[in-house]
Amino acid sequence: MSRKEVSTKPRRKSTTCVFYDKDFNSKTDTLVYALGGLGEIGKNMYCFEHDDEIIIVDAGVKFPDDDLLGVDYVIPDYTHLIKNKEKIKALIITHGHEDHIGGIPFLLLVCSIEKIYAPRFAKALIEKKLQERKRLSKTKIIEINGDSAINTKHFTVGFFNTVHSIPDSLGVLINTPNGRIVETGDFKFDLTPIGQNSDYQKMAYMGATGVTLLMSDSTNSEVEGFSISEKKVADSILEITKNTKGRLIVSTFASNVHRLAQIIKSARDCGRKVVVFGRSMENVVEIGLKMKTIDVGPETFISPELINTLKAEELCIVCTGSQGEALAALSRIANGTHKYVKIIPGDTVVFSSNPIPGNAISVSGIINQLVRVGAKVLVNTPLSSLHTTGHASKEEQKLMIQLVKPKYFMPMHGEYKMLKFHADTAVETGIPRENCFICSNGDALILKNGVVSRAKTRIQTDSIYVDGNDISGLSTSVIKDRKILADNGMVAVVVCIDSRTNTILCKPSIVSRGFVFIKENQTLMKESESLVYDALKQSMKQKVTFGDIKNCIRNTLEPFLYERTNRNPIVIPVILNHKDAMQKKNEKKE
Amino acid sequence: MSRKEVSTKPRRKSTTCVFYDKDFNSKTDTLVYALGGLGEIGKNMYCFEHDDEIIIVDAGVKFPDDDLLGVDYVIPDYTHLIKNKEKIKALIITHGHEDHIGGIPFLLLVCSIEKIYAPRFAKALIEKKLQERKRLSKTKIIEINGDSAINTKHFTVGFFNTVHSIPDSLGVLINTPNGRIVETGDFKFDLTPIGQNSDYQKMAYMGATGVTLLMSDSTNSEVEGFSISEKKVADSILEITKNTKGRLIVSTFASNVHRLAQIIKSARDCGRKVVVFGRSMENVVEIGLKMKTIDVGPETFISPELINTLKAEELCIVCTGSQGEALAALSRIANGTHKYVKIIPGDTVVFSSNPIPGNAISVSGIINQLVRVGAKVLVNTPLSSLHTTGHASKEEQKLMIQLVKPKYFMPMHGEYKMLKFHADTAVETGIPRENCFICSNGDALILKNGVVSRAKTRIQTDSIYVDGNDISGLSTSVIKDRKILADNGMVAVVVCIDSRTNTILCKPSIVSRGFVFIKENQTLMKESESLVYDALKQSMKQKVTFGDIKNCIRNTLEPFLYERTNRNPIVIPVILNHKDAMQKKNEKKE
Repeated sequence: MSRKEVSTKPRRKSTTCVFYDKDFNSKTDTLVYALGGLGEIGKNMYCFEHDDEIIIVDAGVKFPDDDLLGVDYVIPDYTHLIKNKEKIKALIITHGHEDHIGGIPFLLLVCSIEKIYAPRFAKALIEKKLQERKRLSKTKIIEINGDSAINTKHFTVGFFNTVHSIPDSLGVLINTPNGRIVETGDFKFDLTPIGQNSDYQKMAYMGATGVTLLMSDSTNSEVEGFSISEKKVADSILEITKNTKGRLIVSTFASNVHRLAQIIKSARDCGRKVVVFGRSMENVVEIGLKMKTIDVGPETFISPELINTLKAEELCIVCTGSQGEALAALSRIANGTHKYVKIIPGDTVVFSSNPIPGNAISVSGIINQLVRVGAKVLVNTPLSSLHTTGHASKEEQKLMIQLVKPKYFMPMHGEYKMLKFHADTAVETGIPRENCFICSNGDALILKNGVVSRAKTRIQTDSIYVDGNDISGLSTSVIKDRKILADNGMVAVVVCIDSRTNTILCKPSIVSRGFVFIKENQTLMKESESLVYDALKQSMKQKVTFGDIKNCIRNTLEPFLYERTNRNPIVIPVILNHKDAMQKKNEKKE
Repeated sequence: MSRKEVSTKPRRKSTTCVFYDKDFNSKTDTLVYALGGLGEIGKNMYCFEHDDEIIIVDAGVKFPDDDLLGVDYVIPDYTHLIKNKEKIKALIITHGHEDHIGGIPFLLLVCSIEKIYAPRFAKALIEKKLQERKRLSKTKIIEINGDSAINTKHFTVGFFNTVHSIPDSLGVLINTPNGRIVETGDFKFDLTPIGQNSDYQKMAYMGATGVTLLMSDSTNSEVEGFSISEKKVADSILEITKNTKGRLIVSTFASNVHRLAQIIKSARDCGRKVVVFGRSMENVVEIGLKMKTIDVGPETFISPELINTLKAEELCIVCTGSQGEALAALSRIANGTHKYVKIIPGDTVVFSSNPIPGNAISVSGIINQLVRVGAKVLVNTPLSSLHTTGHASKEEQKLMIQLVKPKYFMPMHGEYKMLKFHADTAVETGIPRENCFICSNGDALILKNGVVSRAKTRIQTDSIYVDGNDISGLSTSVIKDRKILADNGMVAVVVCIDSRTNTILCKPSIVSRGFVFIKENQTLMKESESLVYDALKQSMKQKVTFGDIKNCIRNTLEPFLYERTNRNPIVIPVILNHKDAMQKKNEKKE
């Protein structure tokens, strides 16, 4: 890539970003690929590979859709990293949200990583997470900020401050032997931010001195305009806190520390004591207080046991559950099952949040319950400004592209349509269409002397479903079975045969779960048992295999049950061979 | 109730509404209650009972939330109606949407109803529905319109035209011996409607001559302002049809006949032939053409086999699937599994719809797929006006109250919060708070000589879950089992014992589904079997009951499996008593 002339002297020379004066002339390709985060929201994980080195940016989890029954987390398939363990030189974390750090405990189970680089707030959250899971091991977590630099044999990595809905979020500049890559992390531009500001100067300086590839956050690429400032939300919350007469209950995302800080400060300034409910939120507030991101004294808070000693207008409850999560604090408060708080008429409940798609029904359910027990409920609307996003809308995405001025563009973090819209936006701002790369997880881009192209081979990727802590993952066949079980239940048919004499030893016995209510359907069960018994007797007039018996049971029972109930439960034949039983019996006798 | 003076002569005297000149002086109470539709969206069913007569308005179904695993429909518990079969004098249908007519086939299974009164379009849909289910029986379906009247011993029922997202929607005026009730059905006000207009004059005349109780649609009571006119949506669709270069694919609700009419007319006027995909939509278009609601000639349509004979700009595909339903036409088109249509670059797909809460993720999934295969996708936004609701927003709800001027108010059709907001709106327009009744299904209101109060007793109600066509319903315990099965799967443990000798005859055998992938977990299964075997041997040193054995299996296996997998499958002990087996064997031998 030929270097562009630097036409203006940058206002501030970064101490840490190394800018190349020479053309790139590496003999080896640099590879860029994602193991997660493309074609989806969540489990972000982007890798930069050159020769014998890999640098990983972020290691997130994804929370499963409802149709992944019983799955707790989805993580990337780490196979490629396990195979190339010794190449991994650094895991760099851009910020402390779960879709960027949640995969760390799972990754450390299968790959020992020597150094994790994370900004201050993320570092604290990761340490907490690893302590909880007792997996701190030998991994060192090193704090980084906008001025940090990481040097490996092939890579020089620098950072720049961004604004996001958690403190200390960073974008990453990766200088490779084949070109310079900017990875934004999650970002928005907020012209009146709460907390850290965007480093416009460094972004512009990178742009002026030449960026080969920009990888940029696509989450809100369908949203027109410029996002609302966190300051405006803070103002709305202060206004409500001032004007509310009774108790104030505010629910928001535990991870949005700036928001929490504003809610808590507003309460303090209006003469209310604060109590925080919900474990994730208690953790974050604890860290926020320690780091002074939440800059109030301990006298601001009151312990839960004492809340009934306060007048209604002296209390502010901050809690989790703004997404209608069934076990979160707000849900328990609404349902009257919370240890310390029940809704009383006069309470005002503020949702400082938007329902994430997929949670609309559960959020609506909580609001119904809150209104039913007498609370006034305030939600975010275009008029109320009780929430804003942490991600760039279209105009902000354009601003990032204009500042960084990349030659090539790769939209990241988002479902396919979001990546596509973001690419369209990039084309609008002047990036040639052929220089925009919409990739899937596992697709690799090749950087070669300042030129980006698609690699022919793919990196192995997949989604691993984690149920409990079992990293081995659930196979899709297990999830498929769960779906059938969920929709139709199951019927197990137990028969006892003697394979030597080819005889049935007792009438088949049937148990079912999730199918029909047995007590009301005794007849159906009796009929099923007789039906299977008759079919088996018929079939076992000839010599049969276990497979034959199983097929006979399924073929007899499935159509019968469907005809009678219009349901298709899983039919599970269980065959006990009496031969073994007899042997046991004989052994015992001997 | 003292009659108000009629201050202005109504512009149009209805031929059918009977207006009382006398005070009410009945000796018997009139009861008003809902079997469905209060505290929920769907399964609307409102009943009016006086002495030996019941009039039912609407008989809807509700579509289940995702957490009702495998449930196809939810219907009201009809027990009260079954018990009072002979009282039922009429089932009146306000319009042809599923949440107002979908329950009819189930209701007719348990109650023979002589006469169903339905407006023209609804009548056609009901007949189709009953034919499909072969349940036309002896029920007569009688067509009604805004001028119809129904007279029973105690009731005189009249109607008034409303605007809703289906043709021929009606509101109902029920004159009872104790007062006059207006039930709006589903409605909006649209000042430039497509199709039938609201009968403002009749509504105002009812108001002028005195209404005791207004029951009004609460679906959109949280929405500020006045809803967008269907005319504006029609304009947007025409504009897009004009300006689109390639093929045009439009997806909307099959039930929105006015919308379908506009889409089809726009296509015709822009020189495109129309093809309709999706069974429900084909049905509705067929009826709409017959009734001239869709007023185009047969030459407007083309048969699916011929669509490839047209140029791209000569084709308009209208299809179901705007909610992302997995089996609907649009979904199959997006996935390349549709018989006639695959997306080709240049296609424009228009969603003339909003995602219903709960469908956001599946709709998003379809859009991703469409964009991925090269389509341009247009969705409804505040700017694009590609969809409008069929329900009154706040200002329209106020207008209804102002026109009808009721003494008492009962919000209906909606979740609790919607009913509450609607009651607040009614209070704003001047109805005294104590005259507003927020009710649940089964709550009864008493009308007594123009005065409304709450009854002390409740009518039996419940939700019946229908899986397949089995009206007997699923019990909640079955659904609870399905949830556990869905989240954790199941493990069945089969043991064969001899109860006479208190001995285990063979090692327990374990089968599982939806738990772990057995092939990869042979060891776990073997260990489980041994563990249960040892525990049983230990426990059966004493004389045990079947209950003891079951408990022993559960208590042994559940903690072990949880410890090893972090999952809690349903453990189902199956005990075969060898005594029976031996007897059988001996019988056989004899």
